[in-house]
Amino acid sequence: MPKQVDHQERRETIARALWRVVERRGAVHLTMREVAQEAGLSHGAVQHYFTSREAMLTFAMDFAAEQTALRVGRGVQELGDRPHPRDVLRLMLMETLPLHADARATSRMSAAYVLEALHDKNVHARAREGMRQGRALVEQLVRQAIADGYVDPERDPAVETDLLLALTGFTPLIELDVIRPQDALAAVDQYLDRLFDKE
Amino acid sequence: MPKQVDHQERRETIARALWRVVERRGAVHLTMREVAQEAGLSHGAVQHYFTSREAMLTFAMDFAAEQTALRVGRGVQELGDRPHPRDVLRLMLMETLPLHADARATSRMSAAYVLEALHDKNVHARAREGMRQGRALVEQLVRQAIADGYVDPERDPAVETDLLLALTGFTPLIELDVIRPQDALAAVDQYLDRLFDKE
Repeated sequence: MPKQVDHQERRETIARALWRVVERRGAVHLTMREVAQEAGLSHGAVQHYFTSREAMLTFAMDFAAEQTALRVGRGVQELGDRPHPRDVLRLMLMETLPLHADARATSRMSAAYVLEALHDKNVHARAREGMRQGRALVEQLVRQAIADGYVDPERDPAVETDLLLALTGFTPLIELDVIRPQDALAAVDQYLDRLFDKE
Repeated sequence: MPKQVDHQERRETIARALWRVVERRGAVHLTMREVAQEAGLSHGAVQHYFTSREAMLTFAMDFAAEQTALRVGRGVQELGDRPHPRDVLRLMLMETLPLHADARATSRMSAAYVLEALHDKNVHARAREGMRQGRALVEQLVRQAIADGYVDPERDPAVETDLLLALTGFTPLIELDVIRPQDALAAVDQYLDRLFDKE
């Protein structure tokens, strides 16, 4: 089905162009026209693939989440057979924080998407669903880590999951140079050390 | 100096109008014209007080930070003489998370301000300075808590400060209904319990 492949490829090309615009100028003034220009396409061509700015933003966000999942997946593979859950959680946090170009682009898009969600019901539902899936994945890891004896069984898996997700709060602190990336990393490591240290 | 008072009052009126617009429609499409309308002023009147959208946004942000500091200050007073540092830190986190209308307005403004900062050097410098001051305040509290024997002296005050600030990462999770406010609160409480539990 070459036509469908082209369609998906074209949408990904547009999504990548959108990321570059967000990375460079932010999502505040983002327009379909600007993304079309960045992608080397006509405005009409972009409108052919996305019926609205929101649809375009949502696809770009989904695609970014997918790319992040792929990066985490590759990282987990490199950890070998039966990786330590601490290393998996660390990898997930690393890929969520703005510590390299791809993660930064995704992180900035995500922040813009959350703001958009506050005033758009459809975007809110989509963003919520994505974050809930992410949360479920982390909770599953935490529960498994407790079951396998890596984490103190006295710990409440739901609370531990919420606290791990809250650590994405390093994002604005890194973006504004309030905390250096290496200090955020050291803090994350110290946090994980405590979680995996059965006292 | 009645004129100066008027000037400050008028700026605060505009800032409050801006908050309402941000709360209702987000900062993405925010214009001076819209804020003027919300404040019941002419576009020219707002331009008299603020030379640019960025200047208006910066003042509204500073004013929001000031109001947050006042709320925390009042809360600390209610804690009585020599309040427990755990209660003070809890109060600061409570007023930073979107758990009531004023805190939510500030939190949304702050998120919009961070995004704006990524593409505006002046906003970046201002936002950074504000966050650094907040960080310094928290670090001072943590160091004092260690000195007063409330927190294990083995803990690194810089790391503990960074981790406390990262807990503001609950914000998008609460805003998108991924985590309920009461669960975020419970997680914060559990976190603080551990910090103040000398093992």
